[in-house]
Parts: sequence; C-alpha cells; structure tokens
Amino acid sequence: MKLGPREEAFIQANRVARLATTSEGGEPHVIPICYAYDNGFFYTAVDEKPKKVAPERLKRVRNIVANPRVALVVDVYTEDWRKLAFVLVLGTATILDEPVERRRAVALLRDRYEQYAHMDLDDPGRPIIKVTPTKVTAWGAL
Amino acid sequence: MKLGPREEAFIQANRVARLATTSEGGEPHVIPICYAYDNGFFYTAVDEKPKKVAPERLKRVRNIVANPRVALVVDVYTEDWRKLAFVLVLGTATILDEPVERRRAVALLRDRYEQYAHMDLDDPGRPIIKVTPTKVTAWGAL
Repeated sequence: MKLGPREEAFIQANRVARLATTSEGGEPHVIPICYAYDNGFFYTAVDEKPKKVAPERLKRVRNIVANPRVALVVDVYTEDWRKLAFVLVLGTATILDEPVERRRAVALLRDRYEQYAHMDLDDPGRPIIKVTPTKVTAWGAL
Repeated sequence: MKLGPREEAFIQANRVARLATTSEGGEPHVIPICYAYDNGFFYTAVDEKPKKVAPERLKRVRNIVANPRVALVVDVYTEDWRKLAFVLVLGTATILDEPVERRRAVALLRDRYEQYAHMDLDDPGRPIIKVTPTKVTAWGAL
C-alpha cells in the first residue's frame, strides 16, 4: 500500500523514525533509524559500527528474521501540543538480499543522507531492511 | 533497577520517548510518549482525547494488559551523526490503579509538563502506565 499524500509529505519532511520489532519470545525492542521512503516501501540500513557482534546478530535483525512484523513511527514533538503529530506504520520487514533492489535502496539512502557518502553500505555484511506497510495511522497536526 | 547518572541525566534532559509494546499475537506497536522518570521508574499518561474508543481500548493499553513487556527509547537526532545518542530501556509495564502511587505519578507528570495543568489526569478513566526497567542500554554521545 502507498501512503496518502499528506502522510508521505510528513514522512519525507522528517529525518528519523523509531522502529519497533518483537523477538520470537514476544519481547519488544525499539531504536531510532534513518530511512528512505520510496513508492510505498521504507528502507533502512544497519549502519552502526558493530562493536563485538556481527550485524546479523543485532537485535532488530534477529527479531525480524524470527518475526517479520514491525511498527515504525515518525513524529514531531513540540512544546505546543496542538502541533504534535505522528504517522504510525505497521508492516512486515525483510532483510534485502536481491542485489538490484539492495543497490537501489542504498542509492535512496545515500541520496537522502549525505552522511552515508563514506559508509560502506554496499557491503553485503551490512543488512538493509525493507518495510512493507500494511496499515498506516496518522494522528495530530500533520 | 535505577539508571546510571549519565543515563538519568539524558532521560531528564529530554522530553519525549517512544514506547513499544507487543500484542498478544506478537505484533509490535510504537508511539511517542511524554514521561516522568523518578527513582527507577517511568510514568506516562494516556492523554490523548479518545475519539470513539475508551482509553482502555487503546492499543498500547490492551497490549500491556496482554503482554507487560515494553521497550522505550529516548534519543537525540542531529545531522551531525557523531552526536547521535539514545538510551534504550527494556522493562515491564503495569496500569497503575493504586490511588496513592497514581496520584504521585500524576504529580510528577504535571511537574514536568505544564501542558498537563488543565488536563484531567486524575480521572481514573485515563490510564497511567508505570514502566519498571529490567535492562538499560546507552549508545552514542550521551
């Protein structure tokens, strides 16, 4: 499903989302992510420098492999609560391994975040996550 | 468990968190929340004006009743990615019904957010959620 024009404009105007996943045992997890949205899909890279763990061992990646259902929220916080807004996306996530789609996702992320220019997102060891929305909820002053 | 001084200072300096819950069926959900942190516990109010649903029908409340495990993240996003930071709290949530603790939680929330001054958080029909941390992870430039 594609987002409506109002939701899409909000998503494109913001720079950070929070991605929630759930472990096989039902434990939620949530972290801030950068994302690109294109033609109905979200893409996000596992871009932290892993410390001691391989990227595929990261909690969100393990959770997605065990349970592909995810939720992501993009929101604006302001002290004027009349202006609060969020778009909540429920969906399913996959780890991209098809090379053409993966390259395209990396290009979208690089296009949106110049910070990725010198980060090796093409390394297949750095998972790229694709989120397919199944339900979208908008709230507040979008 | 209490947070360390660095994590606590970060939590107190920020104004919004994102709370992830999981449904009985394993579907994650995430929304922005305001919170008070005090003496090892987080408190947050269900403060939206419910439209057609009673507050206890709200997704996060139903999820917590079905599965008390939650995750919440407080983070700072900036275009200078060397300054990114987050504190991730895994824990368990309950809906407060003990009146003394409930009143104290409302006082903490009102003390932190003047926006609550004219909102009837004392109405027992507006759930107050208490989160007890079980694991805390700090990342980045706190």
